[in-house]
Amino acid sequence: MGVLTIVQSENGYLFCGVQGGDIQIWDLETYQMIRSIKGHSDDVLSVTIKGTGFVSASADGKINLWSEGFELEESIKQDNGVLLSLTHSQDYIVTGGTNHTIKFWNTQHLTSPVDNARKSSDLNDVNSGDMMLSVLDRWVSMRTVSGMPKYSEECRKGARFLKNVFQSLGAQSRMIPGASGRNPLVYGKFFANQIQSGKDAKDPSFKTFEKPKTVLIYGHYDVIPAENAKGLWESDPFKLSGRNGYLYGRGTSDNKGPILACIFAVHELLKQGDLDVDVLFLIEGEEENGSIGFQEALDEQKAGLIWRIQPLFEGVDVILLSNSYWLGEDVPCLTYGLRGVVHASITVYNGLSDLHSGVEGGAMSEPLVDLIHVLGKLIDTNKRVLVPGFYNDIRPITPAEDTLYDPIVKWLQRSTDKPLTSSSRSQHSCITPSSFSDSGSETSEYSNENGLKQQLMVRWRYPTLSVHKIDVSINNPTIIPRNAKAVISMRVVPDQKISDICNSFQSYTKKVFQDSKTENMISVQIESAADYWLGNPENKYFKAAEDAIEKEWQIKPLYIREGGSIPAVRLLERFCNAPAIHFPMASDQAHLPNERIRLLNLHAGRRIIKNFLKTVGTQKEKRVE
Amino acid sequence: MGVLTIVQSENGYLFCGVQGGDIQIWDLETYQMIRSIKGHSDDVLSVTIKGTGFVSASADGKINLWSEGFELEESIKQDNGVLLSLTHSQDYIVTGGTNHTIKFWNTQHLTSPVDNARKSSDLNDVNSGDMMLSVLDRWVSMRTVSGMPKYSEECRKGARFLKNVFQSLGAQSRMIPGASGRNPLVYGKFFANQIQSGKDAKDPSFKTFEKPKTVLIYGHYDVIPAENAKGLWESDPFKLSGRNGYLYGRGTSDNKGPILACIFAVHELLKQGDLDVDVLFLIEGEEENGSIGFQEALDEQKAGLIWRIQPLFEGVDVILLSNSYWLGEDVPCLTYGLRGVVHASITVYNGLSDLHSGVEGGAMSEPLVDLIHVLGKLIDTNKRVLVPGFYNDIRPITPAEDTLYDPIVKWLQRSTDKPLTSSSRSQHSCITPSSFSDSGSETSEYSNENGLKQQLMVRWRYPTLSVHKIDVSINNPTIIPRNAKAVISMRVVPDQKISDICNSFQSYTKKVFQDSKTENMISVQIESAADYWLGNPENKYFKAAEDAIEKEWQIKPLYIREGGSIPAVRLLERFCNAPAIHFPMASDQAHLPNERIRLLNLHAGRRIIKNFLKTVGTQKEKRVE
Repeated sequence: MGVLTIVQSENGYLFCGVQGGDIQIWDLETYQMIRSIKGHSDDVLSVTIKGTGFVSASADGKINLWSEGFELEESIKQDNGVLLSLTHSQDYIVTGGTNHTIKFWNTQHLTSPVDNARKSSDLNDVNSGDMMLSVLDRWVSMRTVSGMPKYSEECRKGARFLKNVFQSLGAQSRMIPGASGRNPLVYGKFFANQIQSGKDAKDPSFKTFEKPKTVLIYGHYDVIPAENAKGLWESDPFKLSGRNGYLYGRGTSDNKGPILACIFAVHELLKQGDLDVDVLFLIEGEEENGSIGFQEALDEQKAGLIWRIQPLFEGVDVILLSNSYWLGEDVPCLTYGLRGVVHASITVYNGLSDLHSGVEGGAMSEPLVDLIHVLGKLIDTNKRVLVPGFYNDIRPITPAEDTLYDPIVKWLQRSTDKPLTSSSRSQHSCITPSSFSDSGSETSEYSNENGLKQQLMVRWRYPTLSVHKIDVSINNPTIIPRNAKAVISMRVVPDQKISDICNSFQSYTKKVFQDSKTENMISVQIESAADYWLGNPENKYFKAAEDAIEKEWQIKPLYIREGGSIPAVRLLERFCNAPAIHFPMASDQAHLPNERIRLLNLHAGRRIIKNFLKTVGTQKEKRVE
Repeated sequence: MGVLTIVQSENGYLFCGVQGGDIQIWDLETYQMIRSIKGHSDDVLSVTIKGTGFVSASADGKINLWSEGFELEESIKQDNGVLLSLTHSQDYIVTGGTNHTIKFWNTQHLTSPVDNARKSSDLNDVNSGDMMLSVLDRWVSMRTVSGMPKYSEECRKGARFLKNVFQSLGAQSRMIPGASGRNPLVYGKFFANQIQSGKDAKDPSFKTFEKPKTVLIYGHYDVIPAENAKGLWESDPFKLSGRNGYLYGRGTSDNKGPILACIFAVHELLKQGDLDVDVLFLIEGEEENGSIGFQEALDEQKAGLIWRIQPLFEGVDVILLSNSYWLGEDVPCLTYGLRGVVHASITVYNGLSDLHSGVEGGAMSEPLVDLIHVLGKLIDTNKRVLVPGFYNDIRPITPAEDTLYDPIVKWLQRSTDKPLTSSSRSQHSCITPSSFSDSGSETSEYSNENGLKQQLMVRWRYPTLSVHKIDVSINNPTIIPRNAKAVISMRVVPDQKISDICNSFQSYTKKVFQDSKTENMISVQIESAADYWLGNPENKYFKAAEDAIEKEWQIKPLYIREGGSIPAVRLLERFCNAPAIHFPMASDQAHLPNERIRLLNLHAGRRIIKNFLKTVGTQKEKRVE
């Protein structure tokens, strides 16, 4: 199809009018067609940008006005002659046609142009700390919720915003296309001062010039939903709000706040002339959605060049992320391990319709009942997973590993006078009483060193299987649903192999079902999977982070693991052939209503990153390939 | 609190202005306060009806305008003096106050008065069949959905409408309050012609005057929801629509259509002077909601009198209902049995919050997993219910009962050339292939007489247990929900006792749970229960119905049972000490999208009821108490 007209918007979209009536919108950053709209029933001859939206006109004389979100807002029918050209002023659309007339259309009711007063280029005028909060304020207001199509434009907006932040703070930046239908990633690179200016190079001779180290900082700009339908948020989740020393808002902690602390740390070093390392940022938009397409997007960039000169991910020495949490409010932590995860589903169905339980009850095998019997054979009442071989490959505990738990246990025992109760327990607080009903037994368990260690290990280094929910095809207390679907996850640990676990899970589940001899059918799906991650807390990067933390907080961090999973960590380690370290900035309410981050911790985090980067910059020995 | 002003609306509501600012609205039909609104912050001195809404005024000079649904539509502040009186014309509200002024307020924007052109008093001007459809049309348009508070005014409207229909067709009628917070019932009584006029009394002497028989017809005006969110309805579910000989709309079949067929049958007999029996109608508004409060409402009326003279439910000889369905399109049926039902729920909870499966997975007993283990022990994979004693009290099959299945089996075998397939299978079609996956085996099963009989008995005369759904406290594939609730039903049959079943179910469930030694907690609730019903197909009323059906359709009806439950049947039999018969009018799509009834069947149903009532009127022998 012929492209009859092309116009480019200020923010990097290309609008194409196509023969037959389509309008295609391309993102010039990622070279992806992000939308194809059946906009007209005849050739689209003219497109013009208007305010935050655009206007299109077709050969049949129709003029369509479109919103920022590419929704049709209004349609005007030009009644004589073919419409050939189109432009606009503040208040009018102007059309020219075959009938020798120029028409002015009043469109004052169109969405008024956005407030362009607060461009990111203003950023350099205020001090860095205030600037960070001002940027966080605007970023939190963008509903960058992944996994929900209605927010995909907001995600792209949040990604573009981040790219502009990078650029205005002195980084080179570009967007990297996500996998098909997925949110883009944002790449940013700050070059070390010595490279930029050469001022710190001791030896002016190019030959002995030492290549600076490269730190890759990983994060994600997407957030989980916060519809606040139940009114559990004390303030609008998408409006940054400060109360009692905390910043509240979706993404403040997971993960926009920590990302900005890192970016501004680098920016400050750069301004001071103290940036001795190259810092790459890779900020993705699908982390809360299982990092779908992350591996594909990386592979796509493997041979990619930045500005056609330098490989995007060349020579990374260490990967840093800040996407987990302290054990409590009063002790900083470094995370050196994460469990992996397999998300799976089991569906039992009868290939028929939902049926009335009065009429059919007793005459058929119920899919939900069959599913219950299968699930009951996956895990027993002692929390033991019954999938054959499930526990075979767990790495034995070494004395060295065991001793890492001692300071944590000591800290917990010091905290027995203020044990974490159910009200302070959050989805991300790691240490909780195992006995929920009897608060008396909590204290005794906390005073038992071995019991406590066991509690930690069960969460951090042993695998498990959870059943999250069971969905049925119809929600009615008199109907036998035609299908029932269980959503399951398995957390995996060193040295379990994802492929072994998946195979054993699938074949065992099917066998159990077949043994029940029901007339229904089963489908067992692996939805996604991510490897565990285990860092080496003895390496120099962890030690550099430890020193930086101790300098800031006057206390040694605890080395902890976490039971949750972040798929990108292991993928990046493999992709860059470099180790990762994980530096949580605070405890929080991530994934919950009233997500927040303490302002004190955010600023401390920024300073720690600065010190960490300075230390890494002085570690002059060559990295080990 | 003093009631300062009272006004009565045309449709029988009483509006009271109360000291302090409340407005109370009473239904004069049921003498229930149906709403108390905090309408003002000062004494309500004046209330007047305006259009379909009303207007209130208070001592502080405020005038409030209310909608038909008692929602505040507008507020006007009278700015000087206490407001003392209030009236209105078509376009104005007129107020008088202490400041010697009368004010006219323009309220033309108020809801315009309803279209009163189609009053039910017009009904007598058209022929009875058309009239029935015209009434059905209006009744279907009322969203009389039970169990959803937002429709409670619509339910009341639907009930009032029915009362008006009764009255305009020659019945005495009143509304009976439902249990607290429940929809009202509608009572209607048509007196036999001989009572009204004495024209058919052979003997003018009062002493030998024979009391006519009394037939109680039970039905329900409430319907299940039809939001049509998925667009499965081909036409608006609340607009009666005719296509290919069927009337479509929610309630056409379940149960408004059949009710009107009965009412118009009686009306026609009355007009012809042929009504030889008294006919009571009791039409409830909570059937689809498990007939909650039905028993209470009846008990309340036990000593109730109609017009302070005659007991409401005196001397009922037989109860008739038409609230089930034919086996197929081509053979009329009479239903002589229904299963009872126990609705129960099992909730397992940890008394804590929803937790992240990464963080806590493996460290806690998951409520959903515990629930799965309990459910797995309620019913096995061979559909056998494991609750102790569940099968103990089932009535043995007698040869007489067995032979009732023979004509049904014969009919089914004749139908083997057109077996009911999954596409024609509905929630209310009773006969379906038991093997869903292999269509080849359907035919062979249909040709096996014993297998077929067994299939019927499993649905009609044996008990069962179904698990309908499992709800969790949060819907997220990474969260361990803090509670999980299973919704269960048990269908019960002669001679199982509800109380035995409930006790055994509760104690067994709790025991199974305790044996699992989890730290979670369990709650086992019986939500509602209804007895089975078993009529005597040999009694004279069934025979009268059989004759009437054969006369209309030229074929003997099949005597069938149904696996579903209608709580009111057994309750009414006990309350009236009279037997029930159940006369389905058609097959249908009840409870499904595109609910419908065949116009032919609706008219045939009306004629059959006429003939049935005439026959009952000639059965002169005294009823057996």
